[in-house]
Amino acid sequence: MTVLDKINSPKDVKALSTEEMNTLSGEIRELIINKVNTISGHMGPNLGFVEPTIALHYVFNSPEDKFVFDVSHQCYAHKMLTGRREYYQNPEKYLEISGYTNPNESEHDMFIVGHTSTSVSLATGLAKGRDVRGGKENIIAIIGDGSLSGGEAFEGLDNAAVLGSNIIIIVNDNEMSIAVNQGGLYDNLKLLRETNGKAECNYFKSLGFDYYYVENGNNVEDLIKVFEEVKDIDHPVVVHLHTLKGKGLKEAEEYKEFYHWINAGCTDPNAKSTTETYASLTREYLIKKYEQDKTLVVVNPATPGAVDLNQEFRDKLGKNYVDVGIAEEHAMAFISGIAKNGGKPVLTLLSSFVQRTYDQISQDLALNNSPATVLVNWGGIYGADATHLGLFDIPLISNIPNVVYLAPTCKEEYLKMLDWSIGQKEHTVFIRVPFAPLSSTGKEDNTDYSVLNKYQLTEKGETVAIIGLGSYYQKAKEVKEKLQKIGIVPTLINPRYITGLDKELLEELKLSHKLVITLEEGCLAGGFGEKIASYYGSSDMKVINYGAEKAFPDRIPLQTQLEKYHLTTELIVKDIQEALK
Amino acid sequence: MTVLDKINSPKDVKALSTEEMNTLSGEIRELIINKVNTISGHMGPNLGFVEPTIALHYVFNSPEDKFVFDVSHQCYAHKMLTGRREYYQNPEKYLEISGYTNPNESEHDMFIVGHTSTSVSLATGLAKGRDVRGGKENIIAIIGDGSLSGGEAFEGLDNAAVLGSNIIIIVNDNEMSIAVNQGGLYDNLKLLRETNGKAECNYFKSLGFDYYYVENGNNVEDLIKVFEEVKDIDHPVVVHLHTLKGKGLKEAEEYKEFYHWINAGCTDPNAKSTTETYASLTREYLIKKYEQDKTLVVVNPATPGAVDLNQEFRDKLGKNYVDVGIAEEHAMAFISGIAKNGGKPVLTLLSSFVQRTYDQISQDLALNNSPATVLVNWGGIYGADATHLGLFDIPLISNIPNVVYLAPTCKEEYLKMLDWSIGQKEHTVFIRVPFAPLSSTGKEDNTDYSVLNKYQLTEKGETVAIIGLGSYYQKAKEVKEKLQKIGIVPTLINPRYITGLDKELLEELKLSHKLVITLEEGCLAGGFGEKIASYYGSSDMKVINYGAEKAFPDRIPLQTQLEKYHLTTELIVKDIQEALK
Repeated sequence: MTVLDKINSPKDVKALSTEEMNTLSGEIRELIINKVNTISGHMGPNLGFVEPTIALHYVFNSPEDKFVFDVSHQCYAHKMLTGRREYYQNPEKYLEISGYTNPNESEHDMFIVGHTSTSVSLATGLAKGRDVRGGKENIIAIIGDGSLSGGEAFEGLDNAAVLGSNIIIIVNDNEMSIAVNQGGLYDNLKLLRETNGKAECNYFKSLGFDYYYVENGNNVEDLIKVFEEVKDIDHPVVVHLHTLKGKGLKEAEEYKEFYHWINAGCTDPNAKSTTETYASLTREYLIKKYEQDKTLVVVNPATPGAVDLNQEFRDKLGKNYVDVGIAEEHAMAFISGIAKNGGKPVLTLLSSFVQRTYDQISQDLALNNSPATVLVNWGGIYGADATHLGLFDIPLISNIPNVVYLAPTCKEEYLKMLDWSIGQKEHTVFIRVPFAPLSSTGKEDNTDYSVLNKYQLTEKGETVAIIGLGSYYQKAKEVKEKLQKIGIVPTLINPRYITGLDKELLEELKLSHKLVITLEEGCLAGGFGEKIASYYGSSDMKVINYGAEKAFPDRIPLQTQLEKYHLTTELIVKDIQEALK
Repeated sequence: MTVLDKINSPKDVKALSTEEMNTLSGEIRELIINKVNTISGHMGPNLGFVEPTIALHYVFNSPEDKFVFDVSHQCYAHKMLTGRREYYQNPEKYLEISGYTNPNESEHDMFIVGHTSTSVSLATGLAKGRDVRGGKENIIAIIGDGSLSGGEAFEGLDNAAVLGSNIIIIVNDNEMSIAVNQGGLYDNLKLLRETNGKAECNYFKSLGFDYYYVENGNNVEDLIKVFEEVKDIDHPVVVHLHTLKGKGLKEAEEYKEFYHWINAGCTDPNAKSTTETYASLTREYLIKKYEQDKTLVVVNPATPGAVDLNQEFRDKLGKNYVDVGIAEEHAMAFISGIAKNGGKPVLTLLSSFVQRTYDQISQDLALNNSPATVLVNWGGIYGADATHLGLFDIPLISNIPNVVYLAPTCKEEYLKMLDWSIGQKEHTVFIRVPFAPLSSTGKEDNTDYSVLNKYQLTEKGETVAIIGLGSYYQKAKEVKEKLQKIGIVPTLINPRYITGLDKELLEELKLSHKLVITLEEGCLAGGFGEKIASYYGSSDMKVINYGAEKAFPDRIPLQTQLEKYHLTTELIVKDIQEALK
């Protein structure tokens, strides 16, 4: 029987000796490594936060005392200690729980969290709720050093500091963001580490916090001591822990960025893929462009790995590659500035994190028509955690005036769009990089993309027209082929522009078509298809929009989703037959 | 001839003596006061930044050296010194320029800016653009102390600090945000002022900046001295100026919040309106609620005046009223925390600033189904500056899953919705407070709003159904009345829910209607009507959607917009007749 076997709730942690806690740390680490290597997950941050989690549960009384784990990248040990160890001990149950905190799993989780920099604000709210109802519990936010660069974290700290009552902010400083930390703040954290927390110039104190520093943030005894000191404190306090990301797994301690998140089975930090992908295309294109034009600046907010901007790429571009850290809002305004002063900025980020920048797209970029290029990756329908969906970038981006949002369907279009966007001076351009295997026509794309909102009629038919947007153009083609087999010869359209209607073409369709089908890989509500439906609203043309419903599907297998949304070739063809009756 | 009469470009400032600059300050102040009192505008912040503006233009060489004015609240003097004095000197030309910086007016303005906390990021981008093209000019961001609480400003500072080249951040510390400053940072600014900038614990230094302090930020000579010192500096620097908000107008120095923005003709800070408005209703309702339930917490991000939460209200609620400062992201996460720990939060903010919180609505609130209430004010179509439109809240909010977004049409519905929302525990609820004179039915609303997406069929007719959303329900009624006069008896519907379809009712309409009209006071793209069009897409029902086009109309008179969008009763009736032919 292991020590963990005895832990059925946090109460059981309180009965452990120091020695048992150290043994427990080792057991937890082994389970983290095994599970992550099997089903993927956050390796480094979880390995680094084992001892602090044990010490937190030893000192505080969850769920009365409340923990908020920022971005949930460090919550595995917490889950194991709060009644969910079987999901780490038993490989058959690995997939039954989320990798993020989730109140549906346990009363020890306060929020569903998967985006960064939110914990301090959420915890400040919990503390305020406690205060107005006269509660006395401790409220504890746990935030990594990387997450501190996000604006929401700063806003939270600035407000938490003046709360006037108990709130404990645990800063888990493992000297890393997802990639290397970026920003002036990190020199201050370094200074604090080097002075054992004694430096007078202290970011947290400048915001008004009482402040504690623990040099060995992976030492259970030191941690218990400081947590006991701050427990039930009557004012806001920051406890700054110096921890080791990846602790206990040598490779993870060494290759910190690679081991932040591990894809199951992928354990060679130097592995190079030889498959051509949209990511490798992007990388190669940008390097070539940079070699010709030193005003190109590639910007990424803390997730270069996710978009395959490898170390070689970063080294090659040097100062023309800027990782701004977790700071998506800044990233959008930054590229607007670059574009307005002679640079050619390309920002590349993930669909889910575009959500952090609506106002910056609107005010900093679009309102100013700043000629910047933004590559939106991972947009689409897939079986992700509810916190990391790619469903909402089309409704979010495409309803902002002035933005040109392009949806390439293949390699050649993508490269042409990139080239046009970087070269032009009139528009803010977003490109939805297909989250799909590379598709190629083999023929160079000679489209002039400065003629906005011109759809491509790829095959002329009649009665039915299928408009397949971006990554779903392939699906549109499949539907077309299937229809042909039953004697319907439909028109096939590649709209390429998400942000505008080709009214001329849409009018033309009226002459020989009864039904228009739209296909988009994203949330229908507020999306592309609805605009086509609205356009034809007062005419006799019938329209069916296909896409995802407005929801937060949580780890729902892709096929299940597609069937639900009628997004299979068979179901679409059936619907068409029905509509034509 | 005044001194200002000689200033046709910033170059002319350089020829002035100190005495002339002081005279010029007085002249500029007088023009600010006259213009703001005549056509409304930002009084206090502009009065406080006259000397710094003169000194900046004396030392730096605009437009080669580039200024970015945060939120543009302090740009009037800059406009007067950069060839636009006639628009302040000649009352007939008052309205011909924007109250915000605008590159379409002058090469001395770098961006259209009207939302806060963006200047440092934009300037960092300008600096990066300069660096990659090998330029040498100074880049200067000018940001108020109030704007520093916004997350984007922090992200910008954190990144600007590691730029490695010239960037000069002028912090215009007038000890005020729009209302009183909120947050721990402001104690640090106070400490810096009290120690003449000498305190070791220094927010800006903690982020890595070189730092200068000027106690008398309204003294031209002191300012010129420090600006000359930092001109052409080769690294990031903060110049912290202590200025006086409202300087030169006694009342503005005293009543700083009231004089931040002045409505023409409104000069009594203690004036009380006796007219009943949605704002006064809200205030009274919330006070009554608070008296019954001390877990109610009213939250506002730095704009209590704009939503009429007067000092009396704030005093009455005490700790149950929280102004979080300019920190909209925090505000959303904060109310989620309050709701999850026994409090009943109500956040009230403006449509234009909801834009700063998409991800927080999605991840912090909606994904967690946190039972918080958010009041969205100033949503609608009106002749505002392009930076302050109310057009986009429906597309932004209503396409986020789980959110219930309600559109009351009158006082009674509004109060019932508020009451339901605050009492319930299942949903994140937004309410679009009509930006219109109070409308009242005189009859209590007994609707059970927990039955989601149930539209109200208010008048049963045939052939045509008019769905009038929220503030445009009145317009729908007018259309109905006009139609009746020409022999069409339409059905009238008050949908009340922006975020869902009443499919049962929509199906029923098919039986005796040919045409459905939707009216919404906002951007059509991504909005309410398109969903109705999509719903009916495959049926014989015709649909016409009315609302604003996707654009940033800049100070376009309301009537011009309405005609363009066919949003007048006459044009709608014409369209209906056409469609029924």
